[in-house]
Amino acid sequence: MKQYTPVDFTKVDLNGGFWKRRQQINRDNTVYTVQRRFEDTGRFATFRFDWKEGQPNRPDIYWDSDVAKWMEAVAYLLEKGKAPDLEAKVDELVDLIVKNQDPCGYFNVFFTVVKPEERFKHRTDHELYCAGHLIEAAIAYAHSTGKTKFLDAMIRYADYIEKVFFHDKSAAFLTPGHQEIELALVKLYRYTGEKRYLALSKFFIDHRGEDDPSQYYDHVNGRHCQDHLPVREQKTAEGHAVRAAYMYAGMADVAYETGDQTLFDACNTLFDNIVNQRMYITGGVGSEAYGEGFTLDYDLPNKTAYNESCAAIAMIFFCRRMWMLEADSRYTDVAERILYNGFLSSETLDGNAFFYENPLEIDPKLRHRNTAMKDTTARFPITQRVEVFGCSCCPPNITRFVASVGDLLYSTSEDTLFVHQYMQSDASFDFAGHEINVAQQTNYPNDGDVKLTVQGAAGKSVAVRVPGWCREYTASVNGAPANGKLEKGYLYLSCDQEETVIVLNFPMKPVLMEASSHVQEDAGRVALMRGPVVYCLEGVDNGEDLRALAVDKSLAVTEAYDEFFDGITLNAKGWRKMPSKALYAPVDDSLWKEQELHLIPYYGFANRGETEMIVWIQAR
Amino acid sequence: MKQYTPVDFTKVDLNGGFWKRRQQINRDNTVYTVQRRFEDTGRFATFRFDWKEGQPNRPDIYWDSDVAKWMEAVAYLLEKGKAPDLEAKVDELVDLIVKNQDPCGYFNVFFTVVKPEERFKHRTDHELYCAGHLIEAAIAYAHSTGKTKFLDAMIRYADYIEKVFFHDKSAAFLTPGHQEIELALVKLYRYTGEKRYLALSKFFIDHRGEDDPSQYYDHVNGRHCQDHLPVREQKTAEGHAVRAAYMYAGMADVAYETGDQTLFDACNTLFDNIVNQRMYITGGVGSEAYGEGFTLDYDLPNKTAYNESCAAIAMIFFCRRMWMLEADSRYTDVAERILYNGFLSSETLDGNAFFYENPLEIDPKLRHRNTAMKDTTARFPITQRVEVFGCSCCPPNITRFVASVGDLLYSTSEDTLFVHQYMQSDASFDFAGHEINVAQQTNYPNDGDVKLTVQGAAGKSVAVRVPGWCREYTASVNGAPANGKLEKGYLYLSCDQEETVIVLNFPMKPVLMEASSHVQEDAGRVALMRGPVVYCLEGVDNGEDLRALAVDKSLAVTEAYDEFFDGITLNAKGWRKMPSKALYAPVDDSLWKEQELHLIPYYGFANRGETEMIVWIQAR
Repeated sequence: MKQYTPVDFTKVDLNGGFWKRRQQINRDNTVYTVQRRFEDTGRFATFRFDWKEGQPNRPDIYWDSDVAKWMEAVAYLLEKGKAPDLEAKVDELVDLIVKNQDPCGYFNVFFTVVKPEERFKHRTDHELYCAGHLIEAAIAYAHSTGKTKFLDAMIRYADYIEKVFFHDKSAAFLTPGHQEIELALVKLYRYTGEKRYLALSKFFIDHRGEDDPSQYYDHVNGRHCQDHLPVREQKTAEGHAVRAAYMYAGMADVAYETGDQTLFDACNTLFDNIVNQRMYITGGVGSEAYGEGFTLDYDLPNKTAYNESCAAIAMIFFCRRMWMLEADSRYTDVAERILYNGFLSSETLDGNAFFYENPLEIDPKLRHRNTAMKDTTARFPITQRVEVFGCSCCPPNITRFVASVGDLLYSTSEDTLFVHQYMQSDASFDFAGHEINVAQQTNYPNDGDVKLTVQGAAGKSVAVRVPGWCREYTASVNGAPANGKLEKGYLYLSCDQEETVIVLNFPMKPVLMEASSHVQEDAGRVALMRGPVVYCLEGVDNGEDLRALAVDKSLAVTEAYDEFFDGITLNAKGWRKMPSKALYAPVDDSLWKEQELHLIPYYGFANRGETEMIVWIQAR
Repeated sequence: MKQYTPVDFTKVDLNGGFWKRRQQINRDNTVYTVQRRFEDTGRFATFRFDWKEGQPNRPDIYWDSDVAKWMEAVAYLLEKGKAPDLEAKVDELVDLIVKNQDPCGYFNVFFTVVKPEERFKHRTDHELYCAGHLIEAAIAYAHSTGKTKFLDAMIRYADYIEKVFFHDKSAAFLTPGHQEIELALVKLYRYTGEKRYLALSKFFIDHRGEDDPSQYYDHVNGRHCQDHLPVREQKTAEGHAVRAAYMYAGMADVAYETGDQTLFDACNTLFDNIVNQRMYITGGVGSEAYGEGFTLDYDLPNKTAYNESCAAIAMIFFCRRMWMLEADSRYTDVAERILYNGFLSSETLDGNAFFYENPLEIDPKLRHRNTAMKDTTARFPITQRVEVFGCSCCPPNITRFVASVGDLLYSTSEDTLFVHQYMQSDASFDFAGHEINVAQQTNYPNDGDVKLTVQGAAGKSVAVRVPGWCREYTASVNGAPANGKLEKGYLYLSCDQEETVIVLNFPMKPVLMEASSHVQEDAGRVALMRGPVVYCLEGVDNGEDLRALAVDKSLAVTEAYDEFFDGITLNAKGWRKMPSKALYAPVDDSLWKEQELHLIPYYGFANRGETEMIVWIQAR
């Protein structure tokens, strides 16, 4: 267990390429779309604390966190450029927060306006979750604007929480019902240097599992909020996937700051369980809508996959924290899998609408299969992204995440610069006491060529990740073939000169992937990947009955860049099984007709109207 | 549209072979098992009409029908042999029925003992359904014992129903919420010759769809009880599968007795929709537990298939009525498909326990996939048959059906004897005014050799069904190759002599079947059939992860008779995909290891403890 130094996105300028375009959409569209929807639904207005029983837009228990994530997103955008309208809106909200904050430091709209007598009495009611997001937003806003009014207020709140939970133990519960504040407190510790906040985060993690089960939702058991065992004894990822992944990230944070090997070991056990038994090929986690969470090893149904967008984000947070503890590409590979698939699918290509759930197969007609019921709807994920949902945790989470995606690129040790993800960018940051500059030129993920220029690192090493999907690669340093050692997925290269130019080529070819045969839902099927990108078929391109299609095993594929998807689409030799006359008949291979298949990146599905979609297809 | 003359089971002696053994189990075990469970649950006791609020075993709205079906089963058993204990029990129940019958003729335990003020006010509450089953039982008991006390009572009840519904229209509804009485009334008409009962049955069918929707269950629409359209305008099978199939059978009955071509046409349209779009390969119908019914064309999920046992029985009733209207093997083939698969699966091999639902795939561990819920159970069919269920419609239905399965063998026209199903038997009955004898010697369905001896039919024809699964067959008449014409699946042969010996050979070889490519759930999979019998794999024979298995397309199979299943089991060359190290990896065909597969008849699944089961498997 190491302690690598993170390089945060404020040091990294995504100056072109795929992610610059996503960030531009985020800045131009997403942040405003979310703002408008939050205005429409009264989320901002509730910060005036003047809602009265009987009025519309009754504040909900998690609204503070929705707004906080949007404020955090604005703070991140302000790191990279001016946005006076957004900043003014945040300032207005900060004024309301400070004005309406309880003199003791407490701040929560719902438990002040709607249920003022119930403060810290209901473990499941997201109070500390909201507090965590507010704290994170306040830190971000202080950093990007230098204005400390919000942060000062949230420090008072954090101090109050410390008093109630750590010193007085006067709340009706011991640890949060919905984890998240664990991350915020470590951030606050790092920002302020106050060890008390780290201690409080550690307290919440160490005492998990000791709460009274009567504080759970009526229908769940302790696994739902990862309360079934002390965290260090948990061996499998259980329960609500967002709660789980935030908690694992918090555990990794505390392990990092305290050097607690037992926590790191627990994190690794949980990480392995997720990645080896409980994750979709898209990086999505959470196989079941009921409880929004994990189920059993290898239980990964495609049509009913939950794969909450927030869980994708939380899992990337967990991965990043793990690679700050160990330079092993199993963490970075998983983050990449999530990033280009299960995370990116969560918003439309234009950044204006969002999925809460990210299934791997859609058959729109099944959503109304209960034909004889008044409500004909059967429980399947929605088939089109929407601008806002009742529980709107994901849209502002996506906004803040895209704005800060540069967080994922680098870390350093005393002698090595680690390059974890490939994005066109220019970065300047401290490396072992010296300012260095690192530039990436690349079209990643649309091709696998990366030119990395490192200035000011002579005598040091650069460790570049060789993506797990890559079978054969080439690397050169200043024009000469590289001969560094490959260790845990990183190729260690020496910088002999002031400027080191590393040219990497990770050839991206379509590959037929299969799931472990333990995954019953994917048995006999394949998925196409090209580089880190998972592909899917849509009805709009290929006709309906997508399960009747098979890709030819020869994998005769042509590639083309498609501007609509900002990605590579594939045309593959394939087949369609024509329907037999009878419902059941002897196998008849003459019913296979050749049909070219058109595959698009999974992240781009459902951008052209409601239609069938499938990731796991037949091969023949 | 014809009117063939049915030959009922009382004329047919199943004197050996597969069905004799099933009938012996029915007589020795099933009828007593059901009796004991009905005693234990207080179903019989409620006929004393002395239940009081607060006592255990509160009568339920459908209990009368459970008991009636058991009484009907006993009546059928008495046709074939003495059973004084069973007869005494029925007599005791008849005495209670007569004693407690309302002077007006009304008889219903629930609406006399529990809700006496609510008679004929609740369309959904099964009153007429119970009445129908009581009437059928009474007719059967009068026929087999000559005792008319029960029948006289039920005639009084039928007359009262006629008064209330047909003449006075004084009930709160027009037609039954749960169809069944339509069949009973036609039977009563045939038994008594009173046309009024036929008219009442026709009334219920003709006025279907005119009831007030407020009389539906709260959560359903008109499709649930086939009330969405007048029956002659219904084009697709909708709603609750048992209600539907009983209604279709009743429509066919009324078409038969009235010559109503429009009803027969409607029956054919509905039959075709079921058979071509909405039926499992096992003959099961009803794809969904919620509403217990039909969903959409080709929506046939295997793990969550409902396929109620009663729906299988009702569908066979429907088929038999259709083949009395048209000599077309599409009806008899479907009945056979149901009989040897989806029907037979509904009880254990020893006849002592029952399925309500008959899925085509079981993964027992998924039943507890909601690991984070207090109730971890996910909605899947139960994995082991049970002795009784709360709603115990199926066990006595199975009992009466097996006792009367000889109903399925024959019908006659003025010049042709039709042989619909093959069962070892000896039958004597009237054929165009003369008593004939028909003997079948066969091990069907375990092999396809049938020796049919017809005595007394010189100058007439015998039309034998060539099963739809049979590609090549041979037939001889009195030793010479047969040269009859094949029409709509029947081979018409002439009887030139007093004794005609017809030898049929329908070679049974295992065949790989596939579903129409519209059936998304079965895409890329095959099912094995041998003759009319569908096969499955069980975990107990083949190890778990059954979807990881593939049958070799060469179909290298050895067959063996297995006494436990009273059927042929298969050993087939096959393969198992070994799990890859990673959850997702490039396709690796070297992970396929040869493994011999052991297949058993589907009807025998879940007789050896809880284990995985699958019908639709991979092939390679």
